[in-house]
Amino acid sequence: MSSNIAHLIKVASNEISRSVNDFASDYDLTGTQVQIIDYLTGLPYDEDVFQKDIEAEFNIRRSTATNILKIMEKKELIKREAVESDSRLKKITVLHKAKKLQKNIDEFMKENDQKILSSLGAFERRGFLHALQKLPEKLQSIEQSEVKKQ
Amino acid sequence: MSSNIAHLIKVASNEISRSVNDFASDYDLTGTQVQIIDYLTGLPYDEDVFQKDIEAEFNIRRSTATNILKIMEKKELIKREAVESDSRLKKITVLHKAKKLQKNIDEFMKENDQKILSSLGAFERRGFLHALQKLPEKLQSIEQSEVKKQ
Repeated sequence: MSSNIAHLIKVASNEISRSVNDFASDYDLTGTQVQIIDYLTGLPYDEDVFQKDIEAEFNIRRSTATNILKIMEKKELIKREAVESDSRLKKITVLHKAKKLQKNIDEFMKENDQKILSSLGAFERRGFLHALQKLPEKLQSIEQSEVKKQ
Repeated sequence: MSSNIAHLIKVASNEISRSVNDFASDYDLTGTQVQIIDYLTGLPYDEDVFQKDIEAEFNIRRSTATNILKIMEKKELIKREAVESDSRLKKITVLHKAKKLQKNIDEFMKENDQKILSSLGAFERRGFLHALQKLPEKLQSIEQSEVKKQ
């Protein structure tokens, strides 16, 4: 194999997703649904959130977000509402059923982070966290400048 | 959102997978199929490789690997053969159609790695690579010791 980063990050991400999925399956949810509930319930109480915010936060395409959120709506975890001024904007509201899960999700996520961080040395930990925070934005800006060049 | 690592790694992995998928779609392949071809064509010429090696290398379940490899067999990229001494062992052979792609895949993967690494500082780069190499094994050993405790 010539190179490794795309491969390494996928393997690490699979491993971490697996533990989130295992936790989620206890509540008949997928890992992504749990991560979206975690995101939504962590927002300030009075902050409006729209589907496009979830697309940006999770770096997923609109069609992917629509599919996931429609399923979450069917499960009565969230409500999607068209905004009067712009029907393309879908406002997302967290419902009681999802709010009830917040504490357990929060505890699991903290433990999970701890497990990941404790398996790394201090130096790796810092480099890893910095790189993860920086990468998506950096890569997107490279792609955009490549598209412009074409 | 209480925590971030599971989320951050997923977002970074999505971004990287997207560029691999875009490349792969030019050849009517998925990103994972390209990564498996990259792995197989990079092995020493005389090394036997079995489905279980791919499961371990990509950290995927047997059923997932079976599905992917069956599709790759249909596309005439690989051949799967039961081993006489143990029919559960499936030996994988790379076929000409996949070998022809090796050079282009290799070039793309090198460029892609370069793009990722060049967006990080030297310090982040080292910590990130070390962490990625170490994490899956570390997390698996934590999980196994948790299972034993139960």
